[in-house]
Amino acid sequence: MTEKEKLPPALEELTGQLSRFPGVGRKSALRMALFIMKEPREQVIRMAKALVKVKDDIKACGICGNISQEDPCYICADFKRSRDVICVVEQPGDIISIEKSGGYNGLYHVLGGALSPLDGIGPDKLNFAAFMKRIDESVKEIILATNPTTEGDATALYISEALKGRNVKITRIARGIPIGGDLEYADPATIARAMAGRGEM
Amino acid sequence: MTEKEKLPPALEELTGQLSRFPGVGRKSALRMALFIMKEPREQVIRMAKALVKVKDDIKACGICGNISQEDPCYICADFKRSRDVICVVEQPGDIISIEKSGGYNGLYHVLGGALSPLDGIGPDKLNFAAFMKRIDESVKEIILATNPTTEGDATALYISEALKGRNVKITRIARGIPIGGDLEYADPATIARAMAGRGEM
Repeated sequence: MTEKEKLPPALEELTGQLSRFPGVGRKSALRMALFIMKEPREQVIRMAKALVKVKDDIKACGICGNISQEDPCYICADFKRSRDVICVVEQPGDIISIEKSGGYNGLYHVLGGALSPLDGIGPDKLNFAAFMKRIDESVKEIILATNPTTEGDATALYISEALKGRNVKITRIARGIPIGGDLEYADPATIARAMAGRGEM
Repeated sequence: MTEKEKLPPALEELTGQLSRFPGVGRKSALRMALFIMKEPREQVIRMAKALVKVKDDIKACGICGNISQEDPCYICADFKRSRDVICVVEQPGDIISIEKSGGYNGLYHVLGGALSPLDGIGPDKLNFAAFMKRIDESVKEIILATNPTTEGDATALYISEALKGRNVKITRIARGIPIGGDLEYADPATIARAMAGRGEM
């Protein structure tokens, strides 16, 4: 299905735009574009506004890097949470998954990715310096919840090395998460198990 | 995964909007919304504009009901096509599929759906009156390419009854085992149809 159909330009443009979404091929994008054509105009405008609003309203939390409409984010601002544990994740989506699991009540830190020398992603490209500044004597444990991939493991190792000598317990989430999988899409039960089974590095 | 995550309102709104797409569940919609957050703002605005532009620019062709930026559509306006054959389809997307197949060079007529008395869809809810008006003596064949479903079959039957007595050949697209399909996994109804519709080699 590589051959392009002859579509009206506006439909072609929208199909191209929608196929940029992860996991959406040209065929699905065309199906979505045809769906849009049948939607009421006000509904389509609402969707268009929601797209831009997410881009305009959602910022990174100045403390942890989580996505948020407020700064600090609702997690950093929640004093009912344990403030002596920081869970380090790659992406904001990982926080959503961990929160959904109900297996964690501490704070977070979002790196914005994982170390990947081949892609030119070193510690300077990640939200790492801010993380090191956050670690004072009030922090008792750091849970490394980067993905169980080569990059995620390397990142966890890098962080544990960087914190060597500091008076803080460093743990890694248990490999309940399938190797090669992606934390953002793991089911809550698996994430809860991985949280409970974390071991010292 | 029915439990809702706590998301920033703008992200929640976009996730809800995107999950309206056919075949897109909440999980995929959230993944798409998180993707949007990482996209450059101008790119997101381009997508938002493409959504509304499709709604504003694409109209139904006044002759055949196909989606088009011009009226009549590029197919009705193409005098190199056979004008004595009309292929009746349910949706504009069906035209795209048939055109891609390269197996047809006539005109089309889009009904906008299929008869479904249980859903209150009678001939008056379809683009049917305009179809009957199109059928003059210049039309030699009508190909009924509604879907091989209960509704699509009923619609094809209804049209063939309505055209009874007219001097026009009425055909129905062949139903059988799909090319590249596996007889072992085909459903009994399809196999029965393929047997009944067998042709000499």
